[in-house]
Amino acid sequence: MSVVINDIFRKKAEELKAPLIERTVRPERIVVTEKDKDAFQGISVIKKGDAAFPVEIKNDEEIIFDFGDHFVGYLNISLGNDGLKRITDSPLKLLFTFGEFPLEIVTPPEEYKGGLGNGWLQNEERSYVFLPCKARLDRRYSFRYLKIRRTDNASFPVKIEDLSVTAVSAVREENAPVPRTNDEIFRKIYKMSVKTLKECQQEVFEDGPKRDRRLWIGDLKLQAMTDYGIFRNLDLIKRCIYLFASATGEHRMVAPCIFPDSPPYVDEWTFCDYSLFFISCLYDWYRNTGDISLVKELYPVAYTQFDVIKERFIRKEKRIDLNCFIDWCPELDKSTALLGVYIYALKQLKELAELLGESAEAVKEEITAAAEILLSCFDEKTGLFVTPSGQISYHTQIWAVLSGVLTKEEAVSVLTAIKEYPTQFTMRTPYMMHYYIEALYNSELKKEALEFIKDKWGKMMSAGFDCCPEVFNTENQFESPYNAPEINSACHAWSCTPAYWLKKLL
Amino acid sequence: MSVVINDIFRKKAEELKAPLIERTVRPERIVVTEKDKDAFQGISVIKKGDAAFPVEIKNDEEIIFDFGDHFVGYLNISLGNDGLKRITDSPLKLLFTFGEFPLEIVTPPEEYKGGLGNGWLQNEERSYVFLPCKARLDRRYSFRYLKIRRTDNASFPVKIEDLSVTAVSAVREENAPVPRTNDEIFRKIYKMSVKTLKECQQEVFEDGPKRDRRLWIGDLKLQAMTDYGIFRNLDLIKRCIYLFASATGEHRMVAPCIFPDSPPYVDEWTFCDYSLFFISCLYDWYRNTGDISLVKELYPVAYTQFDVIKERFIRKEKRIDLNCFIDWCPELDKSTALLGVYIYALKQLKELAELLGESAEAVKEEITAAAEILLSCFDEKTGLFVTPSGQISYHTQIWAVLSGVLTKEEAVSVLTAIKEYPTQFTMRTPYMMHYYIEALYNSELKKEALEFIKDKWGKMMSAGFDCCPEVFNTENQFESPYNAPEINSACHAWSCTPAYWLKKLL
Repeated sequence: MSVVINDIFRKKAEELKAPLIERTVRPERIVVTEKDKDAFQGISVIKKGDAAFPVEIKNDEEIIFDFGDHFVGYLNISLGNDGLKRITDSPLKLLFTFGEFPLEIVTPPEEYKGGLGNGWLQNEERSYVFLPCKARLDRRYSFRYLKIRRTDNASFPVKIEDLSVTAVSAVREENAPVPRTNDEIFRKIYKMSVKTLKECQQEVFEDGPKRDRRLWIGDLKLQAMTDYGIFRNLDLIKRCIYLFASATGEHRMVAPCIFPDSPPYVDEWTFCDYSLFFISCLYDWYRNTGDISLVKELYPVAYTQFDVIKERFIRKEKRIDLNCFIDWCPELDKSTALLGVYIYALKQLKELAELLGESAEAVKEEITAAAEILLSCFDEKTGLFVTPSGQISYHTQIWAVLSGVLTKEEAVSVLTAIKEYPTQFTMRTPYMMHYYIEALYNSELKKEALEFIKDKWGKMMSAGFDCCPEVFNTENQFESPYNAPEINSACHAWSCTPAYWLKKLL
Repeated sequence: MSVVINDIFRKKAEELKAPLIERTVRPERIVVTEKDKDAFQGISVIKKGDAAFPVEIKNDEEIIFDFGDHFVGYLNISLGNDGLKRITDSPLKLLFTFGEFPLEIVTPPEEYKGGLGNGWLQNEERSYVFLPCKARLDRRYSFRYLKIRRTDNASFPVKIEDLSVTAVSAVREENAPVPRTNDEIFRKIYKMSVKTLKECQQEVFEDGPKRDRRLWIGDLKLQAMTDYGIFRNLDLIKRCIYLFASATGEHRMVAPCIFPDSPPYVDEWTFCDYSLFFISCLYDWYRNTGDISLVKELYPVAYTQFDVIKERFIRKEKRIDLNCFIDWCPELDKSTALLGVYIYALKQLKELAELLGESAEAVKEEITAAAEILLSCFDEKTGLFVTPSGQISYHTQIWAVLSGVLTKEEAVSVLTAIKEYPTQFTMRTPYMMHYYIEALYNSELKKEALEFIKDKWGKMMSAGFDCCPEVFNTENQFESPYNAPEINSACHAWSCTPAYWLKKLL
């Protein structure tokens, strides 16, 4: 599809690009993995010894280094041939496998059957013609564990003299505020969320540093919202908002994602909820910075989302005739939830219009009309919102609450009723869980919100994650939207919002 | 083993290092390989089309680029995603396989069973996270053919926008003198030899640019001898002689090879014939340059070879009790041939001593004694030299002739007799063939020398080689000293001497 480029916004985005902060980190220990039915995904990691260099590596030998925490960066390796007792008479070959979590390093790449291209598998074989040598892998990896296997089938001695990662991020973890609680679990969840936010903060707010590495607006909305209170990297937030404004398709909808290391490009598909979140990003910017100039400059882009989407709102069918994301939940009827998103975003647009002294009439009328239709989906018998196809999901209830069309009591009632209702359409991603927490918070169910965070993110923590994963289902530890759990991202931006909520709730 | 370093020589060697000459070359055509029982090693290469970029590559597709000639250098690749019709939503993965000859690119690496480490196999898989991109492989390869296979299992479109090699050498091929003949075969053999000499001329005289990439003194002797009349790269010759002088083992013998990209290192094993060739290298230097200063400076190193080796000469057993190379010929009794090498080198040492006004008495006495023992190996019945174990080989006859202990008529008689004698111990490498040509030349059998070159190197040419191969046996096209013909070097310095001989003989 042709891309409509706004060069001014693009240039401003480029000017806001700052150099990354680098830090050199060495592995903490050498470990082995073991089958363990009680451990997450059936694998436990056992310490074998400290990572004290040099470390000898023989042909066909495998050594797993544990860096002790999650890092995003570039591997440096220094290789020697044991003080030249014998010469390297053919090139050394090493196979590197990086893993954010143990399953990733124990699953043979040839068994990969995922729906995404295998290029995201974090492994790479390199040869070193002459030793000793110092080398760096030029691909950036996201990992805690590094498995190195020697594959050259030669017998000369080789020692890994040193191993480090040049870790990169736009921010420094130590600059995050400390959590205001002595609850050990909450402190750890907070740390995990902050770490996730930091790891995903690179030249853009990436969705995940291991995979995709894209700027998604659904993720950006949550990252920015959290970051205002944590690292407050305003330049990066502004840069990302400009990037979304700088390139849209002919349809004039804001793209769901931007490919930061590509020439301007807009994919042919859209997510209508994500396009609406451009309004939310601007709204949050103003609320957190008081800076009206960016709002003024980008208001036309925000208003255009309304202009385009309202044309696709088929009122008599109670749905917007556009693709949307909502959640990774197969067979979910998203139509009523999307109405909630629509109202949620239009209310923010109305506030922005009033702030700028622009006419808000059309927006207000649309809110009224959409609210009426959304409310008509309420089913008195179940006390829940039902989609036109008759489906009752968590998603519909959450967005009905977030749209603000209910009183506090009605909202509490809906959120209580859905917990009792036997639906298969539950929240599948931490992304959707965030909106559940927001719905609980807006309904003044603060205790429930905290319990929910402690339960869900506490389990992620207990599973051994250092950061917040993209997918986490206690019922199915191998769940993967890509049919390959090893390719799931274990550090995913949309899961980082507990840092925001814990700051707000504690 | 401890290394005895001479820092002065090492420093001089470093000072003589010159930048390489770079040249950018693009592939000429796209080809396919076909089974063909009439072709060398059963494989023929068929043109499919010109290499006109961009070239689309789909998942699992294999494209073979033919660069039209042999090159040593670094691959540059420019990758695009077809004008961004669709985004690259996972990293592109390409498997590169470089080949000097077709067998190398059609043999699956997993079938490799060679004695050398598999690190010499010229293949490498790389991933490219974002497209479009320009990349360079940082390992130097030696090749004519490049097979690229896409392995990412994704469906987004990819185009190879450009492909080139930054070819490197210390010399320019066009600076070589033209051959003085209109004979088409000789002209081609000459070109092939010059090309080989050039390709092996890098920061040192390498044995082969694909494999080993080392400075071997047996190869250097022949390379330098040829180069005096071709590129006359005196600095590089001098640099290599200094390198050999700069690091010896405790045994004080010149090492058989130097690892140019390693700290000073001397392997625990030696080749006595190769150590003696240090004398030849100095001798040839003086004969070709008239420069006595280098001879004066390094004469002690040359004389030391005599000092050490004479102690291991067990006269009553008619052999020198040291390891030697002579040729890749299994079960060869090398003892008598080595006596020939010994006398050959000592005669050169004697001349150098006389030139410098040093005492040559001990050397002269040793020559007389060794000559007497060598001559005692002559068997009147067969008219050939026989080793103490009763073996009759080409090698023994050749080195008996080259030692100069025979009259011209005796030499002709021996060289004629060995052609009729049914021995399994024939010349196996072009390296040994060189000494056969030298023996023919010294015996004034110039016509035979030319015929031999035309026959042997002509067959290499007909087999499709662009340069002179390390191993070539018309009886066994798959012969390999490493039990893996695909790892043989198809551009090997010790096979380049026809350029020397054709200049001399035509």
